[in-house]
Amino acid sequence: MEVAETVESVRALVQAARNKGKTIGLVPTMGALHIGHISLIEAAEKKCDFIVVSIFVNPTQFGPGEDFEKYPRPLEADLKICREAGVDVVFAPTVEEMYTSENVTWVNVEKLTESLCGRFRPTHFRGVTTVCAKLFNIVVPDVAFFGQKDAQQAIVIKRMVADLNMPLEIVICPTVRQHDGLAVSSRNKYLTEEQKKDAALIYKSLQRCRKMIEAGITDTRKITTQMRKILSRASLIKIEYVSVVDAETLQSTDRIAGKVLAAVAVKIGPARLIDNILVDSNK
Amino acid sequence: MEVAETVESVRALVQAARNKGKTIGLVPTMGALHIGHISLIEAAEKKCDFIVVSIFVNPTQFGPGEDFEKYPRPLEADLKICREAGVDVVFAPTVEEMYTSENVTWVNVEKLTESLCGRFRPTHFRGVTTVCAKLFNIVVPDVAFFGQKDAQQAIVIKRMVADLNMPLEIVICPTVRQHDGLAVSSRNKYLTEEQKKDAALIYKSLQRCRKMIEAGITDTRKITTQMRKILSRASLIKIEYVSVVDAETLQSTDRIAGKVLAAVAVKIGPARLIDNILVDSNK
Repeated sequence: MEVAETVESVRALVQAARNKGKTIGLVPTMGALHIGHISLIEAAEKKCDFIVVSIFVNPTQFGPGEDFEKYPRPLEADLKICREAGVDVVFAPTVEEMYTSENVTWVNVEKLTESLCGRFRPTHFRGVTTVCAKLFNIVVPDVAFFGQKDAQQAIVIKRMVADLNMPLEIVICPTVRQHDGLAVSSRNKYLTEEQKKDAALIYKSLQRCRKMIEAGITDTRKITTQMRKILSRASLIKIEYVSVVDAETLQSTDRIAGKVLAAVAVKIGPARLIDNILVDSNK
Repeated sequence: MEVAETVESVRALVQAARNKGKTIGLVPTMGALHIGHISLIEAAEKKCDFIVVSIFVNPTQFGPGEDFEKYPRPLEADLKICREAGVDVVFAPTVEEMYTSENVTWVNVEKLTESLCGRFRPTHFRGVTTVCAKLFNIVVPDVAFFGQKDAQQAIVIKRMVADLNMPLEIVICPTVRQHDGLAVSSRNKYLTEEQKKDAALIYKSLQRCRKMIEAGITDTRKITTQMRKILSRASLIKIEYVSVVDAETLQSTDRIAGKVLAAVAVKIGPARLIDNILVDSNK
């Protein structure tokens, strides 16, 4: 496995693979790799010949007061995970390598970034789309892999790729969960054992949503009220949003119809956690 | 010469050329081709093996009340010019092919787009950078060629490519002028013979600027006052701006220093005309 720290070196490594006729898969990450990331790498290996994992804690997607400084950066452990998972190249640039001069160019996806997390993190998705555009232009992958856990991110990136005719395919992989349902996340490391137990309520609230929709309930407020009730069992959970929205437009609706995304964001202690499920109300 | 009307077909033609080891040059245009465009095609042919000219009157770079509707679209004449110039592929998509659904993704270059034309056409450069990002992603050229006549556009696109790590080179080609100095432009077609004579004053004002700087004058206002005087010889010229700005940042300065861009935008009858020169005040 090669570790590239510069744009030039990762490009050379990818070009050499491409010259051998290999297809390129990119798994963009912020490091602190866990079994969720490993499932993305495995999906990439099934579909592509040559796997690049980028590890970059992107400052432009963190807002003021967020956890950019303290976000975990266990590079050696991450490299070990990548090596064992059969990754070909890890691209781990510095902030200076990625943003060489004052960055004045932004890729903005409007509308889809206004609801859910976008309401609480107004510059977050601009940072995500801009750094993904950069990574796609640097690595030039055939396919890039993202997790369903960041559902809004997945939809926003897919839309960016379609709108800007980016020549790659985006694959969204299922959320990986612990036995108690908690979605695996690098930010779970911020939690105490007690807080982790509380965090399991997030998935419980999403399951309740699914059951209510499957039982034919279409009143969105009735559903989110029940979800909030479940979350409020843990007094230390601070709810940011509990939303059931159209799965394509991410717009909220009073009445559930078609495919919907149930999404939750909460704060538990120092951690902001998000999770979601897709439910087809027609089924 | 092939004419491709769809993203898929131009991609297939370019891929076939690339598979033969050819380098790809792109000349993005809005059609109504003239000797300025031909000079771009010739520059592309010197540097690249396979030349793609795109012809697309891009609606998103026109503001309300601008000339999108009446912008000339002489496709047959354009194709003849391309054929005679040795172009390999003309990419001439419809608006629907380029913007398949409601476009919500924009590439924004901040700061550099705020001065000069950006002050008068606030959504123009957003449209330019977005459509160029799309064209670059569709054609995936090694080099793209633009004219110095659209100086701010050239600087903005170069910055977008650098900031987003787009994997191509941008080449800026010199402005092509008539004998009387008028910069060749598709919008010159809007002018009567009388108005064309008036339009020649634009380049005269720029030449005066160069002479004053060469004579050691550093007071920007002194220079722009003289330039305005020359332009005011034609009573029908309406000045939009007469600016001497830093050639890199496009910021105005009271005192000329280093490399500057002298830029003029005027309205003559139905035409909005722009022109510029680069002057190195250190020489």
